[in-house]
Amino acid sequence: MGRLVMKFGGTSVANIERIQNVARHVKREVDAGHEVAVVVSAMSGKTNELVAWCTEASPLHDAREYDAVVASGEQVTSGLLAIALQSLGIQARSWQGWQIPIRTSDAHASARIVEIDGSEIIKRFAERKEVAVIAGFQGIHAETGRITTLGRGGSDTSAVAIAAALRADRCDIYTDVDGVYTTDPRVVPKARRLDKVSFEEMLELASLGAKVLQVRSVELGMVHNMPIFVRSSFDKPEDIDPHGTPPGTLISSEEDSMENHVVTGIAFSKDEAQISVRRIEDKPGVAASIFGPLADANINVDMIVQNVSEDGKTTDLTFTVPAADFARAKQTITSAQDKIGYARFDSETDVAKVSVIGSGMRSHAGVAAQAFAALAARNINIRAITTSEIKFSVLIDAAYTELAVRTLHTLYGLDQV
Amino acid sequence: MGRLVMKFGGTSVANIERIQNVARHVKREVDAGHEVAVVVSAMSGKTNELVAWCTEASPLHDAREYDAVVASGEQVTSGLLAIALQSLGIQARSWQGWQIPIRTSDAHASARIVEIDGSEIIKRFAERKEVAVIAGFQGIHAETGRITTLGRGGSDTSAVAIAAALRADRCDIYTDVDGVYTTDPRVVPKARRLDKVSFEEMLELASLGAKVLQVRSVELGMVHNMPIFVRSSFDKPEDIDPHGTPPGTLISSEEDSMENHVVTGIAFSKDEAQISVRRIEDKPGVAASIFGPLADANINVDMIVQNVSEDGKTTDLTFTVPAADFARAKQTITSAQDKIGYARFDSETDVAKVSVIGSGMRSHAGVAAQAFAALAARNINIRAITTSEIKFSVLIDAAYTELAVRTLHTLYGLDQV
Repeated sequence: MGRLVMKFGGTSVANIERIQNVARHVKREVDAGHEVAVVVSAMSGKTNELVAWCTEASPLHDAREYDAVVASGEQVTSGLLAIALQSLGIQARSWQGWQIPIRTSDAHASARIVEIDGSEIIKRFAERKEVAVIAGFQGIHAETGRITTLGRGGSDTSAVAIAAALRADRCDIYTDVDGVYTTDPRVVPKARRLDKVSFEEMLELASLGAKVLQVRSVELGMVHNMPIFVRSSFDKPEDIDPHGTPPGTLISSEEDSMENHVVTGIAFSKDEAQISVRRIEDKPGVAASIFGPLADANINVDMIVQNVSEDGKTTDLTFTVPAADFARAKQTITSAQDKIGYARFDSETDVAKVSVIGSGMRSHAGVAAQAFAALAARNINIRAITTSEIKFSVLIDAAYTELAVRTLHTLYGLDQV
Repeated sequence: MGRLVMKFGGTSVANIERIQNVARHVKREVDAGHEVAVVVSAMSGKTNELVAWCTEASPLHDAREYDAVVASGEQVTSGLLAIALQSLGIQARSWQGWQIPIRTSDAHASARIVEIDGSEIIKRFAERKEVAVIAGFQGIHAETGRITTLGRGGSDTSAVAIAAALRADRCDIYTDVDGVYTTDPRVVPKARRLDKVSFEEMLELASLGAKVLQVRSVELGMVHNMPIFVRSSFDKPEDIDPHGTPPGTLISSEEDSMENHVVTGIAFSKDEAQISVRRIEDKPGVAASIFGPLADANINVDMIVQNVSEDGKTTDLTFTVPAADFARAKQTITSAQDKIGYARFDSETDVAKVSVIGSGMRSHAGVAAQAFAALAARNINIRAITTSEIKFSVLIDAAYTELAVRTLHTLYGLDQV
């Protein structure tokens, strides 16, 4: 017997029929003897509707009132799932963030969880075998007593934080995909589902566009060493053996893995724009003079490459921004040319970033070199390279994205056999 | 300067445009120097949607979960109205029932208000001139910490209870009609809006089908002597002089009225069925033997007429039930014939009740006698009569309902001139 947190997203609770399907998933785990807390999102579409109303009422609106409005979506789902569970003969009750309480910071609309008191829920596990159905995405700011929300996708974070507070054995994230893949299956049909990835690898995969989990939930799982299991909510509850190994991806600490993947997956993002600022005076503070104004303009800078200068006097700086922000970024940099002090502004708006992720890179030399050779063999020009401990990224012409991803996927032995 | 509670129902907050219209009504009162608390219902249709989901999840559902689900409707409106008020430059914040708190009994789905702590809201009136936007219809059961609701239409009751707790000068109920009428204007085009009625009169008018206000809110107004002003939310806020006398009906204690109406209004209800149980043994407990089983079957009995028996041995008992319940009522009575001990069961399913209400009846003799004569002159047969201090009702054939209402409306000088 163990203690489980099960989290279901918006598409999994989109209507009453699906909520009843979720109830059967929960019943399966309860019948297998587990203590269960369920975390639910709003029914799909509901949060968008509520957000749209806030914006219609006033484009600039009080985040505290926004939170009161949008938190209602999860409240509805929690009550409905409790009802559906009870009708299957399972003891269940709903919990709103303020009832537990889930204490958060006062950063309304993007609050951070400060503390969760899981004692009453744990007591009820023992005394009544009661399933806790918890509204995700929300909490309360203790000092003001007002409802807070964690920001879009925050239910994943709720689930992992609650799992930690309840000292659960695992946090199961039920979603509309059946796990984390080596790359986007729409680009590489031979992409494989990963049985296991480490928190660190998942952070790189998630932030690079494998939109399975909210990044913060993975960080939280890493901090609390809470294993997260990503699995499909569309599997028939009756087809799953609760004692078997269901399909899905387990995200856990590296130490728990039998072996590290050298390469775990290939991520990519199109719609990048590359900016090169040439022959900048090579002196302290020059990077700040470029990236400060971009940050002030709320432009998200991704890859940054600065080479050691040849003459010790000037250097070239290359970085990428989202294609949608390119015009503003260009305006920001060129209007400050005198202040920054550079000779030339080059740019290319049709580029893509391809990243290779794997915690085994730490101990395996030459992983990146293989990629450069394979891409060269395909005549794919590498515009820039950045590396980190468990990842390297290359910037290429966008037209070659799919070819590059498929080439690397095969190169590192990720193709399904 | 005074202190006002303003309550807006579902049709008045049906979409963002109407919520913005409500905000302008509130601004008018704030600009006139009033301290204002606003009580809101769910956007029209929302509560029905939420209730339907609960029923779809399980026809027999936990009232505690039902409350968590349906209370979300008012939560949404309160946040949206606070946003709309702020965008007009007015200090405002939303309050959920549990935040104030509005403490209620634990009778989920039909809880009664136990206590409201208005101190924080009053403090904020003084310190910040802040408008309190309160989610109607809901509260919290203090011992369990769970959300409760007051039952359908409960926002009227919330508003009056909050007005009492805040020691407001008046509770304004904005609705889709502009007041309480002498009778249904669809039946009598010459029906007049009443400027003033007493709580007692309103109770009789409300329970008899003038569905302007929830009956409990009027009872509460009477207990706390809180004047209630019924007015239209569809008037243009800009057209109303906050210092003038807007159209509407003031419901207050009789003592506040300059004079009592002899007759205030004519109420009626069709879809009644009349049952007469003939020659029952006239002994103690016989009424209980009839009405007990009907109550057990959840059949609402309205008029009850029992005459003094002629021979001192048997009596006839006549009463009415809703037409929809007639078949069940008949079954209940006839299957217990031996136990009750009666000779004959008569019934008539096509009858209507017409009631004449007026607190002046207390001091004016012969009011009812005038009605009987006027109805007789129109050849309308009176099947049964009941009277109370400020009301009398006659049971007639349903076909004559409109004629009877119009006749009495003219008789008592209620027609518009």
